[in-house]
Parts: sequence; structure tokens; C-alpha cells
Amino acid sequence: MIPAVDLKFLHSPSSVAVIGASDDSDKIGGRPIAFMRRFGYRGTIFPVNPTRATVQGLHAYPNIASLPFVPDAVIVALPGQDAVNAVDECARLGVKGGVVMASGFSETGRAEDEERQRDLVARARAGGMRLVGPNSQGLANFGTGAILSFSTMFVEQEPLDGPIGIVSQSGAMCSVPYGLLRRRGLGVRYVHGTGNDADLGVGDLAAAVLADPEIRLLLLYLEDIRDCSSLECAARMAIERDVPIVAMMGGRSAGGRRAASSHTGALANEQRVVDAFFSRVGIWRARTLTGMVDTAALYLQDWRPRGRRLAIVSNSGAICVLAADAAADNDLSLATFQTQTTQALEEVLPPFATKVNPIDITAALLTDSSLFGKVLPILAADSGVDAAFIGIPVSGKGYDFPQFASDTAEFANKDNKPVVVAVPQARVADEFQAKGLVVFDDEASALTALGQYLHHRELRQRVREAAPLPPRNIWSGESRVLSEAAALTLLREAGIPSADVRLCTSAEEAEAAFADLGQVPTAVKGCPRESTHKSELGLVKLDLCTSLQVREAAQELLDLMERLGLEADGILVTPMVKGVREALIGAHVDSVFGPVILVGAGGKYVEALDDVRALIPPFTVDDAREAIQSLRVASLLAEVRGEPAADIEAWARAAVALGQLMIADPSLRSVDVNPLMIGAATGEPSFGALAVDAVVERFDPTVCCVPT
Amino acid sequence: MIPAVDLKFLHSPSSVAVIGASDDSDKIGGRPIAFMRRFGYRGTIFPVNPTRATVQGLHAYPNIASLPFVPDAVIVALPGQDAVNAVDECARLGVKGGVVMASGFSETGRAEDEERQRDLVARARAGGMRLVGPNSQGLANFGTGAILSFSTMFVEQEPLDGPIGIVSQSGAMCSVPYGLLRRRGLGVRYVHGTGNDADLGVGDLAAAVLADPEIRLLLLYLEDIRDCSSLECAARMAIERDVPIVAMMGGRSAGGRRAASSHTGALANEQRVVDAFFSRVGIWRARTLTGMVDTAALYLQDWRPRGRRLAIVSNSGAICVLAADAAADNDLSLATFQTQTTQALEEVLPPFATKVNPIDITAALLTDSSLFGKVLPILAADSGVDAAFIGIPVSGKGYDFPQFASDTAEFANKDNKPVVVAVPQARVADEFQAKGLVVFDDEASALTALGQYLHHRELRQRVREAAPLPPRNIWSGESRVLSEAAALTLLREAGIPSADVRLCTSAEEAEAAFADLGQVPTAVKGCPRESTHKSELGLVKLDLCTSLQVREAAQELLDLMERLGLEADGILVTPMVKGVREALIGAHVDSVFGPVILVGAGGKYVEALDDVRALIPPFTVDDAREAIQSLRVASLLAEVRGEPAADIEAWARAAVALGQLMIADPSLRSVDVNPLMIGAATGEPSFGALAVDAVVERFDPTVCCVPT
Repeated sequence: MIPAVDLKFLHSPSSVAVIGASDDSDKIGGRPIAFMRRFGYRGTIFPVNPTRATVQGLHAYPNIASLPFVPDAVIVALPGQDAVNAVDECARLGVKGGVVMASGFSETGRAEDEERQRDLVARARAGGMRLVGPNSQGLANFGTGAILSFSTMFVEQEPLDGPIGIVSQSGAMCSVPYGLLRRRGLGVRYVHGTGNDADLGVGDLAAAVLADPEIRLLLLYLEDIRDCSSLECAARMAIERDVPIVAMMGGRSAGGRRAASSHTGALANEQRVVDAFFSRVGIWRARTLTGMVDTAALYLQDWRPRGRRLAIVSNSGAICVLAADAAADNDLSLATFQTQTTQALEEVLPPFATKVNPIDITAALLTDSSLFGKVLPILAADSGVDAAFIGIPVSGKGYDFPQFASDTAEFANKDNKPVVVAVPQARVADEFQAKGLVVFDDEASALTALGQYLHHRELRQRVREAAPLPPRNIWSGESRVLSEAAALTLLREAGIPSADVRLCTSAEEAEAAFADLGQVPTAVKGCPRESTHKSELGLVKLDLCTSLQVREAAQELLDLMERLGLEADGILVTPMVKGVREALIGAHVDSVFGPVILVGAGGKYVEALDDVRALIPPFTVDDAREAIQSLRVASLLAEVRGEPAADIEAWARAAVALGQLMIADPSLRSVDVNPLMIGAATGEPSFGALAVDAVVERFDPTVCCVPT
Repeated sequence: MIPAVDLKFLHSPSSVAVIGASDDSDKIGGRPIAFMRRFGYRGTIFPVNPTRATVQGLHAYPNIASLPFVPDAVIVALPGQDAVNAVDECARLGVKGGVVMASGFSETGRAEDEERQRDLVARARAGGMRLVGPNSQGLANFGTGAILSFSTMFVEQEPLDGPIGIVSQSGAMCSVPYGLLRRRGLGVRYVHGTGNDADLGVGDLAAAVLADPEIRLLLLYLEDIRDCSSLECAARMAIERDVPIVAMMGGRSAGGRRAASSHTGALANEQRVVDAFFSRVGIWRARTLTGMVDTAALYLQDWRPRGRRLAIVSNSGAICVLAADAAADNDLSLATFQTQTTQALEEVLPPFATKVNPIDITAALLTDSSLFGKVLPILAADSGVDAAFIGIPVSGKGYDFPQFASDTAEFANKDNKPVVVAVPQARVADEFQAKGLVVFDDEASALTALGQYLHHRELRQRVREAAPLPPRNIWSGESRVLSEAAALTLLREAGIPSADVRLCTSAEEAEAAFADLGQVPTAVKGCPRESTHKSELGLVKLDLCTSLQVREAAQELLDLMERLGLEADGILVTPMVKGVREALIGAHVDSVFGPVILVGAGGKYVEALDDVRALIPPFTVDDAREAIQSLRVASLLAEVRGEPAADIEAWARAAVALGQLMIADPSLRSVDVNPLMIGAATGEPSFGALAVDAVVERFDPTVCCVPT
């Protein structure tokens, strides 16, 4: 794994020069100076401006060379070639890091601008200087006051240092989450807009933020992933330090990808592979801004939940109903109370209140304010309750809601069970918030956030226990298709059970093979050296039952391949296999993420059904099983209409083996096993999973063999 | 259709007596008096309390008989049997309507409480008095100040009369949407909690609210639907008056249904039938509270959109990307600009800005505040743009955002195209809101609301053009299964093409039928009088090609049925039909909603796949096609791997015909056509859709024939 870059010179520089410094604190070259002075930066600020003696009251320098000493960091607030020249000079002088704010580089898509960006990076690297940008809003660290950023949001929304970091390819998408978090009263330390990621990218800056032990939550915004190694490194640090990362990636839709391409020239990552990568490294992918910021307050709690079994308590029956619906929407189960819990609830609640989950305290709360305080400790004592939802839709006058808030807070603190609260009245919500509780307007928002928090926690636990990702060895270049015989042999040797296939070169050999196999019905298939779509060419003969049929079919196929001019290994004789279901497993090498394994519904309609999940190897049988069970076809894998359940374990094992094969052999470009016949989980057919047909493409080592 | 009940005596009573009036304005019997006085009620209030001379400064009366005249309405704030007695007395005196607030009636599920509720209603009806409740929070009309309600929310949140009505079975779920709407600055006139719906229910009160010509949006909360006629009547009024109804119904999940059952004793309506009913009558079903209240402000606009083609404009490329993703999530398409639009944008925007949709104005907005004002009129002139999204994630200091707000408002007003705005900064958002614009925090919320608004508009237009629902004639009682021959004949006569089936009583007849049909392969099936699962009994013989095979199979089946002791019509001879796909159409009679038609993926895995949509007949071929295209199996209905596209039109026509059959013949209990073989849309097989097997259950008119 790439070690995290030490970026102290950008996060905590002892001195910062602003090249193109402006006296106007609303200009790009003026704002960072104003921000640093206002937000407590204790290092030295050097305004560089050849036309002024002072800038914002500070002594200004005509150029970089005239500074009394070489600064740790520079902000380059100059356009185009001037920015390149400034970076060149800084790099020569030994400046460690710089932020280049100017746009008009590779994001325009014009060749000359791309060339200028390459030049910019080359000059910085020549002097060992690291760059953020170009086209960057800049970096902000409210821990040290080093605000190398011109974000308008810092003018509008007073900062508060806190345990959250934001790293974003887009300036707007670091300012907006920042603004929303601050509106929720949460403190944020790092607000980094990385821009074109020409040198330092989102992954590097994420790792640098994670190196700060006070950071407890990291939010990312991305439009593409060109190099996943630095992101993987950051994700690994986050797992080790138990810091959740929530990422939003624009371009989920075709329209979004088009827009991203014209915004930042973003590459079109395959979305399901991105999902697989995030999941493999423990990053939660948020689909909306709400999903990114709404759960923040939960991540900052010291909760230690053991599962997802939820207790629901409300003074409204309707909220109990809606919370149960929202729990189901978010894959949270309703806790089944222990007997002593129900008995204890019987004792404290009035007769018409509900004592099973959800607990409807009813309007009795209006007359007896102690009911919350009586019910919650009972739930706290129930080891079958992992988390709680408290819904108080109506309160206020006549209700002792400060007491409810205290009771809820006591419950939450007692044994660190997660508690989310839904209170639509601002005045009442404030009371709960003041007690440190996490409050939402409604049950759906509360339980969506809780669901994300609990599922993400489980994901991170799985990643913590998972094998590390191996180095990616991504080949490219020419490739060729293996014959089916070679492909099935390769799979068998990799531990993926494959159909018993006999390669024959004559009708007589085929007849002998049939006799030796001794199973009917049998299939005979042509085996051209570069096998592709055999059925379409008429190279598959099925349901053969006699020696004569096999011999005739074999001869026919040999003749046909000769007529078609296909170079062939011969013909294959194989017993026909009938499983409970047809599945597929596949693999390909993604140019960014390396080997990717697919599991899905098999058969001829694979593309139309699009019922496929991706996994990044290595992964476990558990991971594969979970992916398989999230397929739409999953409902047909259980016992259905008297047919036995399919052997999902065998399918999962085959997928794991394929993952190991792809890691072990970087010369493999793609593997497509369809159908993978799945036998019965118990009973007949008991063969587990069997590769019946396979197409394997291999990079030609004599031609390319170029790891990238 | 049931005419709407005139409830003027509850909405605008000239006098209201409060029975059980309290001097304490926070007690149930005190709040309505305080509310009416505070919120401008101009009628007469009679506090009834035998122990006090005055209540809240008003002259109090010892009992109902002592009032100077009979009031229009009464509030019964007494518990249990006292409430029943009070209603009895009021009904005798000629009071027109009453609100009964006490709980402890049928919602407890206890027999004596249910009996007391029946008694309560009987006594009211005896005197022609209409009741809301029991277990009701009461009715509020802020138009007249007639607040016959004790909602705590009215103490907390100052009311504002406006064009919105809320009718809810739950007190909390009328107070909470009310509170959230008020927080958004929207005015609400009616806030009705109906409680146990013993006499007047949600449907009746909804119709009464819709009778007010100033109401422009109606929100409903339900936990079950026991009688859909009054709701249907209200929905019809809403369509006629062009008032959208948005309903939330708790109990979507198993846990939610359990909770609803213990909350209000709710019946478990079949969720997909509820969806079909709402859709058939034009009610939008919201899944969350946010879905119910977030779109409210959009419904109140005077927009006249013609489609769902969206233009996106932002000063941030990232917001363009995310808005495009959110548009796709909400089934909004991105408008393709006309040539003159792109040309005009070229003229006004700087070179690096994007001139295709989404339009990224870029940070150039900071230096040129006129850009919004230049871009928006260009979009207004493009007839291919139906609606617009404006995202301003970063603004504030240095930006002329009051100008942006004016420009956006001018665009919105110009030709009534819907415009939604996403602005996360409160100060900037206020500026837009002040101009009457609808503002959200982020693009996902904005476009979710816009999506609902536009889809609901389309739904209401379809309902406006649809045939009215016929009266439901719901039979119940014993039923019997028809023989397959009878079932297929019934379908054929109803206009649903069915397989050519010959009923034979001997092997010789079967042989002759086979010769006459002249098609191979042929199937021979036993035809027991009460046909159920023939395959399981071995009563189906397939792939018969010769006269001899048919004769032997026929004899075998006749012998088998005799051995099994099955009373049989004989055996069926039918050519085997192979379609492009296997579908199902089905029908059953729902005890609340009447006939329901199902369309879904056919074959043996129907239950496991659960890929079925419901429709309430009568419906059109367009409706059926849309339902079919929303199935998961839809991706296999187009041309797939060289197989022709399936004849969806024929499938849809068969579903429409089945709907008409179910309406015409109320003796039909259920129809299950599986498979309905679907032919090719063009090319072979060209038979359209063909019922190959059918199970029909018919109520026995001699035994039951009881319309309910």
C-alpha cells in the first residue's frame, strides 16, 4: 500500500505566501489573507504583490525571491502561464507545497491547457514541491487557521472547529456540505476543494486529513476515480482509526455522467464497480447530499451497538406505525422483547398502552410525564434491543418535555445504545438537542440515518476482518480467446468445478469418449481455437443418447468447422448437466480498479435482465453469498414449488476461487462462465456448482505484457 | 357515486356547545373554547358544565336542555358512557353534528367498547345527528375560527388560514403535517382528526373540505380503508375541481401493519390493491411525511407544464452533475435544447460555460451578475423545456443574489413553467422565497418534489379522461371452480383469445379431434369438473405427435381420473402453443375495492418472483401497458437476443377485457390465467395473446348470491 503523504506543510504551515495577493478581501487573492487573520492563523503571512507596499495592512513583497525566508506553503492566485511561472520559481526556491487556484487547465479539455497542466506539475516535481489544483478552491484547516481557500461559505457561515473533514473535487460540493453541517451545529475542521487533482488528489488529501487523530468523520465528493490506490490507502487508514468515510460520487445516471465529463473531464467509471470498490474498502456511498450530512451527528456518538434490532417508542400510535414502516424500508428489524421486559412494561404503562414493540405510550403521557422515564430503563435492560427510536410528534404546552429529553439522554448514555429522536416542533427539538441527542423532523429521516449508521458500521467491521487488497497489476494490450477445452481446464485447475469434457479430434475418438463417460444425454460441441458464440454457428449438438448419434454429430461438426475455415482444437464430448438454476460468474480487469468479479443470474438473457453484482477480489464466501442474495433472482434460489433450494454456497465458493485466480494470474483479461450450473443445496443434483461453458480471454504476453 | 355530505354545521356552525367545558384552557374541554375565541370564531359558544357559573369568562349552562336554543354543533368532552348519554340527548334535541373526543371505544378491540361505539352511533342516527369520532382530536376550520379540536399544535404554532386541508385518522398525523407546513410558511385551513370513523370517516370529511372552493390541496393520513366509496367520491370531486390529493397510508410493512392493528384495529388492506385504487382515482401515495409536505408549495403554484423535460442551470458544475442524477432518479428527462437556444446561449455565456443541458454558468456569475437574467429568458422561449431547476450552491458576499432571485421569479412567472430552486444558504434562500419561489436545501429534495408534482399532474389528467368507476357489487359466500373447458370458453366469450380446446369424452373422440385440429405437437389434459392443479395429479400429457400417442394418452387420463375418483367433464385435446413469453392475467374480488385485475410475469414461479401489478377496472389499454412496462420482467419484453419483441398490446387488451368481464359478472370470484402465452409484436408467432390454461372460481348463486 502507498504510504500516506505527509502534508503538514499545507495543513499547518509555519508560513504562507500569497502570490497575487489582493487588498480586497473579497478577491481570490485577498480572501485567504483575510480568513487566516480572522480565523486565528499563528504563522507568518507574506502577501506578494509587485504593485503595492502593503496588502490588507501587511507588508507586501514584490516577488517570491524577495521574501525574508522560504515559506512552507504558497497560494498561487495568478492566472494561466503566470501561475506556472510562479510555481516554477517556488519549486526552485524549495517551497514544499502550493495551492493553484486558477482554472483554464485540463478541465477545459483543450490540448494546450492540458499541456500547460502537465508542465505545471513537472516544474513543481522537479523541485520536490507538491501541488493542490489547479482549478482548486483551496484547503482550509480550522484547527490551525491555515485557510488557503477562497470559499464564499466562510464569509457567510461562521466556522467552528470540529471533528469532521470534507475533501471534494468540487468547490461547491465542499462548501455546501460544510454549510449544511454548520447549520446543524456541527464543527468542521478541514474543508478541501482539490480541483483538477493534477498532483495531489482526493485520496492523498483524505489520507492527510485522516492523519489528524482528532478527525472522526470524513466526507468525500468525487466525479471520477482515475487512480484508486491513494483512495484505498485513505480507506485503510480510516478502518484502522475507526473513522467512517461517506462518499458521494456524481454521475450515477447517463445525464449526470455527460455533465461530469464536461465539468471536470471525468472518466466514466463503471458504477457497479465503484459500488464494489467502496464496499470492499468500507466507504459508504451516499446517493444524496442529505445522505451525506444527515447521518454525520450519529457517526460522532460513542455508541457501541451490537446489531440492528430496533425498539420504537412514541406517544402516538400513528408514529409507531410509520416508524415500523420506515424501519422495514431501512432493513432494521423490530426487536422482540424479552418476557421480563413485557412484564415490566405491564407494570408501568396504563392498560390501553401497547407493551409489545412498537410501544405506544398513548396520550397518557400528557397526564403522566414520568412514563418515558419508566419505559426507557426497561428497554435499556433488554439485551435484545440494539437501538431505539423515540417519536414525539406532539408535545409542548402541558407536556413536561424537558423531562422527556433528560430521560432519553439518560437512556442513550446508559449503555451506549444508539437512539434517534423524531420531533417536528422546533422548540421541543431544541430541548432534546441541548441534551446531546440526535433529532430529526420525522421518523423516515431518523431511521434512514440510523440505518445508514448501523449498516455502515457492519460493513466497516467486515472490512476490518477482510484480507487486504493485493497490489493491482493491470495489463493491457492484445488478447486472445482460449478454446473452451483450455478454458474449462484452467477453471478446474483454479478450483472451480467444471463439466467433464473430453477433447476429441475424430468421430471415432468421440464415440470412445461417450462410451467412457457412460452418461446420457450427451452434448457434442465444436471447439474452435478462438471460441466465441458456438450456438450461433451451429456448433452445439444436444440431447444425444446413442453411440451412433454421437459419432454422426462429431463428424458433422468436424466437417462444418472445416467448411467454415475455423482453426479448431477438435470437438468436445460432455455429459449434459441439469442443475436447479443457471447462474453466471465472470471476471474482467478494470483499468482503474483491477480485477472485478461478477455474480449474476445466468442463461441467455443476462444482458437484458442486468441482474449482476460486482465484487473486488479477494473476498470471502460470506461476501459472495451476500452479493448473490442481493440479486433479484434470489427469490428463486430458495425452495420453490417443490424444487430444491440452489446450492448458493457452491456458487459463492466458485466466485471466491475465480477471484483468487484473477489475482494470481494478471495475464487473464476476462472470464465468462455462463451457465454455471447450480445443484441442489441438499438432495439431487448434488454437484454443487459446475462450469458448463466458459469463455476466457488472455493478454498475449509475447505481444504486450505491459503492467500499467 | 355517493354525493358528498354537507357538513356546514361542523365547518361553519352558527353555534357550538362544549359539553364538559373546562375553565382550564389546557384541558380537552377547555382548549376548543380558548381556540375559538382566539382564532376569530364569530358564532355563539355555549360552555356546558353543571358545576360552574362561568367557564373562561363565558356564561356556563348546567346541561344541554338549558341552552337558549339548539346549537348547530356540539363538542363532547366527556368520557365513556357519559359521552353516549350526551350524544343521545343532543340527537333528541336536534343537534346536527358532534365531535366525540373520548377514547375507549372500538379502538381497544374489546367487545364491550365496540358495543358502546355501535350504541353511540345508533343514538346519533336516530336523531339525524352526524358524528366525528369517537377517539377524535376534532375538527378545525381556520377560515371560520370553528376550532372543535384540542390539538396541542395550535398552542405551539400560530395558525394562518390558507388553501390547504388535512384530514387524518390520527391526531398526531394531522398535527405534524400541519406543524411542518406552517414552519414552511404555508397557510392551512382545515386540520381534521377523524379518530374511529364510526359515523363520518376520512372520505366524508375529505369531500366536505373539497366543497370549499378556496381549498387547493388536500392531505390525507389513513391506516386502513374499510369503505372506499366515500374516498372515491372525494377523489372524484378533487379531479373535477383540480385539487390534488396526497395520501399517506401507514402499514406498508408487516411490522407497520401489526402496529396499525393494535393502534386503530386497522384491517390489513392489500398494499398493491391500495396502490391501484389510489392511482385509479388520482390520489398520490406518499411514502414519507417529507413526501407529503415537501411538494405542497409546488401544488399551490399556477403552473401549466406540458411535460417532464427539465432544464438545469447552476453556477456549479458539480450541482449540474448531481441535479442530472436526481432528475434520472425521479424520471424527469433532460430537455434537448433547440438550435436557436444553444446559439443564443453561445452569445450570452462566456466560452468556458456549458451551453448544453445542464447549463454550467460557472463562477463567471461572480463577475457578471446579469448572466442568470440573460440565460433564463432564452430557456423560457424554448418550447422543448417544460420545467427548470436552478441550483445556487454558493452565493452571498460578492454575488448579486437578490438579482438572481428576481430573474428567476420573472422566468417562473413568464409562461408558468415550473421552477424549483436549490439554495443551501438560509440568507440567500430567504431572498428567493420572498419572491414566491419554491426553495429547497439541495437538488435531490427539489427534484423529488418536482417529480412528484409532474407525475401526479399526469396521473390526474389520465384519471380525468378515464371512465368512472362503476358501483361495486361485492358478492361473498361459497364458490366453486369451473372446469378448464368451461373457463376457457368463458374467457373466449369475454373477448380474451384462448387456446383451441376440444372437450372429448373418449379416446376415439380425442383421436378425431386431433385429426380435425391438424397441428403438432398436441397436449391432452384431463378435465375434472373442479379443475385445480392438473400437473401435480399427472393429468397433463405433452408433446404428442401421432394419432396413436393421442389415443393412448386420452385413454390413460380417462382411466386415471376414474381411479382417482374425480368427477370429470372429459379430456381436452389442444395444440401446444409456444409464445415469445409467458405472462399472467388474473382477477379477484377485494372485499373493500371490488374487482381487481393483476398483470404479471407468468410461468411456474409467479409467487416467488412476485412481479405483479394490480389495476382497478375499468381501465384502458394504455393503463394496462404502463402497468406491464413497470414489471421487472419488462426488460425481456423488448427484442432480446434475436427473439422478437412480445406483443404487449395484445396482453394489455386481454387485461382490459378481463376487467370488463369482472365488472359485468359479479358472480365471478377469481380468474387466474397462467400462462397467458404472448406472441410476437411483429413476425411469428403472431397470435397476440392466448390463454392456455385458466382457473375460474364463481360464487354459487343458488347458495349465496349476497351482494354486500
